Amino acid sequence: MTKFHGVVPPVVTPLNPDFTVDYPSYTRVLEHLLGAGCHGVFVLGSTSEVVFHNEKTRQEILEHSVKVVNGRVPVIAGVLDATTDSVIGHAKVAKAAGAAAVVVTAPYYTVTSQPEIIDHFRYIKDAVDVPLVAYDIPVCVHAKLARSTVTTLAKEGTIIGLKDSSGDDGNFRYALLDLAEHKDIFLMTGSEIVVDNALSMGAHGVVPGLANVDPHGYVRLWDAAQRGDWAAARKEQERLCRLFEIVWVAQSRVSGGASGVGGFKTAMRSLGIIDTNVMPRPRQALDAAESARIDAILRSTGLLG
Amino acid sequence: MTKFHGVVPPVVTPLNPDFTVDYPSYTRVLEHLLGAGCHGVFVLGSTSEVVFHNEKTRQEILEHSVKVVNGRVPVIAGVLDATTDSVIGHAKVAKAAGAAAVVVTAPYYTVTSQPEIIDHFRYIKDAVDVPLVAYDIPVCVHAKLARSTVTTLAKEGTIIGLKDSSGDDGNFRYALLDLAEHKDIFLMTGSEIVVDNALSMGAHGVVPGLANVDPHGYVRLWDAAQRGDWAAARKEQERLCRLFEIVWVAQSRVSGGASGVGGFKTAMRSLGIIDTNVMPRPRQALDAAESARIDAILRSTGLLG
Amino acid sequence: MTKFHGVVPPVVTPLNPDFTVDYPSYTRVLEHLLGAGCHGVFVLGSTSEVVFHNEKTRQEILEHSVKVVNGRVPVIAGVLDATTDSVIGHAKVAKAAGAAAVVVTAPYYTVTSQPEIIDHFRYIKDAVDVPLVAYDIPVCVHAKLARSTVTTLAKEGTIIGLKDSSGDDGNFRYALLDLAEHKDIFLMTGSEIVVDNALSMGAHGVVPGLANVDPHGYVRLWDAAQRGDWAAARKEQERLCRLFEIVWVAQSRVSGGASGVGGFKTAMRSLGIIDTNVMPRPRQALDAAESARIDAILRSTGLLG
Amino acid sequence: MTKFHGVVPPVVTPLNPDFTVDYPSYTRVLEHLLGAGCHGVFVLGSTSEVVFHNEKTRQEILEHSVKVVNGRVPVIAGVLDATTDSVIGHAKVAKAAGAAAVVVTAPYYTVTSQPEIIDHFRYIKDAVDVPLVAYDIPVCVHAKLARSTVTTLAKEGTIIGLKDSSGDDGNFRYALLDLAEHKDIFLMTGSEIVVDNALSMGAHGVVPGLANVDPHGYVRLWDAAQRGDWAAARKEQERLCRLFEIVWVAQSRVSGGASGVGGFKTAMRSLGIIDTNVMPRPRQALDAAESARIDAILRSTGLLG
Repeated sequence: MTKFHGVVPPVVTPLNPDFTVDYPSYTRVLEHLLGAGCHGVFVLGSTSEVVFHNEKTRQEILEHSVKVVNGRVPVIAGVLDATTDSVIGHAKVAKAAGAAAVVVTAPYYTVTSQPEIIDHFRYIKDAVDVPLVAYDIPVCVHAKLARSTVTTLAKEGTIIGLKDSSGDDGNFRYALLDLAEHKDIFLMTGSEIVVDNALSMGAHGVVPGLANVDPHGYVRLWDAAQRGDWAAARKEQERLCRLFEIVWVAQSRVSGGASGVGGFKTAMRSLGIIDTNVMPRPRQALDAAESARIDAILRSTGLLG
Repeated sequence: MTKFHGVVPPVVTPLNPDFTVDYPSYTRVLEHLLGAGCHGVFVLGSTSEVVFHNEKTRQEILEHSVKVVNGRVPVIAGVLDATTDSVIGHAKVAKAAGAAAVVVTAPYYTVTSQPEIIDHFRYIKDAVDVPLVAYDIPVCVHAKLARSTVTTLAKEGTIIGLKDSSGDDGNFRYALLDLAEHKDIFLMTGSEIVVDNALSMGAHGVVPGLANVDPHGYVRLWDAAQRGDWAAARKEQERLCRLFEIVWVAQSRVSGGASGVGGFKTAMRSLGIIDTNVMPRPRQALDAAESARIDAILRSTGLLG
Repeated sequence: MTKFHGVVPPVVTPLNPDFTVDYPSYTRVLEHLLGAGCHGVFVLGSTSEVVFHNEKTRQEILEHSVKVVNGRVPVIAGVLDATTDSVIGHAKVAKAAGAAAVVVTAPYYTVTSQPEIIDHFRYIKDAVDVPLVAYDIPVCVHAKLARSTVTTLAKEGTIIGLKDSSGDDGNFRYALLDLAEHKDIFLMTGSEIVVDNALSMGAHGVVPGLANVDPHGYVRLWDAAQRGDWAAARKEQERLCRLFEIVWVAQSRVSGGASGVGGFKTAMRSLGIIDTNVMPRPRQALDAAESARIDAILRSTGLLG
Repeated sequence: MTKFHGVVPPVVTPLNPDFTVDYPSYTRVLEHLLGAGCHGVFVLGSTSEVVFHNEKTRQEILEHSVKVVNGRVPVIAGVLDATTDSVIGHAKVAKAAGAAAVVVTAPYYTVTSQPEIIDHFRYIKDAVDVPLVAYDIPVCVHAKLARSTVTTLAKEGTIIGLKDSSGDDGNFRYALLDLAEHKDIFLMTGSEIVVDNALSMGAHGVVPGLANVDPHGYVRLWDAAQRGDWAAARKEQERLCRLFEIVWVAQSRVSGGASGVGGFKTAMRSLGIIDTNVMPRPRQALDAAESARIDAILRSTGLLG
């Protein structure tokens, strides 16, 4: 397998006012990302609001994505669910729909031990012949993938990679060091704001939700890192940090999840990429005042004229 | 609507070695509970390991339960899922299958604010004409239903009751006080070990997982409380507390969830109620040594000769 | 040793505007508590805001308390500090000042394991010949005294009792059951709002901060429980729960600690027991609007005419 | 004031078997650090186990440090305590003893809001004319200094710097960006394992406990960063990450605090810098087997022949 690498945005799922997927907008999002030079796309993840969509819609979104991307870059698909057999079900569908790899969290809702988490990944690997990427996102799953869990699964071949959205950069570094000799394993950060650090430590890829809004910025950051121009990488990252302030614009009124992805959608609407900033229930969309504040940030970071 | 009340066990879901539902054992569980005088059953909850079962199996379990119970007591059904529209889907199925009420948690996986939780319940109520019971279980959902969330939803008629598995008895008491004038609202505790306290505070029902193992004990406790014999209630509760030690027998080896429900299943197997102690993946079943320790507890509490 | 028992309020420390202790008010507080029939007093605890006072002031407060109480009831003294030897220092002073027992938490600031917590208590017991009471207050210490920690220390004679402010009533019940044969051990709840439950489970004493405001209420509750009149106990408890709402009056403006103890002080000022509602820095005192809301609660619960 | 910068180790406090401070060893630690080129020392912090020492010992440690350092580098002193006025007391002593600045956490034991934390720092600044450094260490204090708390205090001149031991590198980056125009403010990371990242983001200094064991390594890392040789910085950091594994050697037996600082002390004993690895009560020292494992790490990272 060719190792995954580069900027692999988690793709926002635009909605119509009736909460169905707005596929014309969705297509524009994908073309926007690929046009900017992104190296892959991650569909059906947390930024995609996957848990709001049922199996049928998940399949349609993935099939649509595979069709639009049409082999230009790999399409990685989230198969998030609370338990082992549910994930296996999603993984089979995702494989059939053309996913290059599937992204799997630890079980959630139930409280799970690290040995059970290891078993969870092994059972899925045994059941579906598709590459697995572990997804460490404690803010949603409420369990952290331990360093030894990741390295055990990687070294034995159960997983081919990690998406680390834990915010624990020290632990991520140890995963990179522990697996440095395993050239087939790739480790990606889910951060938007310390991507230069992750790349400097040796991360193979980045999965920033904010790349939906500014994919060119993250591609420039990636390119600067590849050529070892850390000053340029840092400068680009700092601009993106100022842009990332859009995720807090609505935080006094709605939950962090609604404020974050809602901020992305609202900015993408202002940039003409998608038609609405509709959020799945029970999340509320950002309002006009919040949208105006987001536009101000887009202007100050050079995205809006 | 007649107010729900009494001992309403969350029904364990026995499995075959191939992880399918063992319906003959399931039928025996239900008859065991009804034979002991339980006042209702709660199927497809956390103790039922509902999140391990797909929509089709959930429906079968509920239809089987309704058929076996055959109107002798109300069947309340969990419709647990991560997001509003998923819950609505389950709730429609549950209503069609004959559930007297459906039990709904706050959204999970996503991080959700209290106003969003309130909207979540309202959207479900609007979409499905079936009584809603709020389920407060922060250990799984990682959000607590605030006192004002519960009272708002109850007073406006969105929910008809609460199952409180939060362990916060002080907050539960305030819910009881706040809603004392609302005679149609029922408030149940999910505790196994302070049920006498909950009843003394005015709780209308109890939903103890341990009642799968010893329903007679909880019915005796309920009856003692109804006649105001708090000394007898306490004595029965204290015996049940010693029995409850079965949930910690395997805790050094497996997760708390596997140790707890696994302890119930292992005890029920020893008592001849169900055929296996199989757990859904990735949970491991209790082993022979653990089963022997559980038998010792069953003997010391009078359940095994 | 005679076992401690009954209503043992944690005594509020009234302050002058210059943040020194207002001893005339302090004397009135003690007389107010003893006049109502309280069975002991707990000075220098969390409600006393002990960590805001230095060693010299702690000693003065304790000596003043012992002098005023003058043997009418036992005076128990908190010796709270972050580490073993600091606690030993306070304990020696407290013993010399006449404390009947000293109250000790797990270490704080540092992260400590249960075996280290056990050693902590043993070192203190070895160093100072004064009865030790374990104080379980995870909201401040950020560690819970495990059931086995409490029972180990009690059975070996290191501690003579427990003050449980953890809010985990199920765990408290197990401590009561585990130590039921140890007639010299006493177990007290720090709750204000489920005291009837604690007494029904067999608690030997109650340490409610709210008793500073309404000691007669808690003594009536205790007396009702002693004669087995649980209906009267519950009724009194429910009135006290409505009174306890004073602790949340300022919660939108200040921290929970300032709102809680500040609510007690403000109520006591309205009742003429103390002269000011001054709070130690950096806590802010409640303002006039908050005081008016507290007065409304005092009136509705029968404490203010 | 000259801005603080560079490698500023938090100095380990070596103990005699009777738990008194081993000053000859302490002197050797300081000379070891200064000989390696460290740019300052931070005494009486968490790594110094400050909360285990009383006021008199704190003063002696600081006075000894100032005397030994003798103006070669700045001596920064922790004045950690639970409440505002306790900190003020320590700060006055520290100023008199010659501290160039004092390091202050948020209040602990009590639960404190961000506005109260801001007031806490302001009260201290008003009371003692000594530069204040904010210390963000949520693992001990159980409160995080919010981004706005740090920037408010820095911009108004209440604090001159920050030591960030929170592990939240994204938030640290925002503090760096927010205060980039404030040339007199310095921001230091408490990390041992992502120091290269912190420096790349613009951090002015690093406060790694591990520098007690290998100060030359951190000075080389600092120097590489200063000349923009990020490849060399990363290589040095990765070696230090392998060395940092000493902090987990004893973690299965003792608490994290004892395992971490105990690992430092045990390594320093093996390197001949200090005489014992004695830990303050109730912490247990590492045993012979653990010491042997630490020696193996010291050898594999080039520190022991």
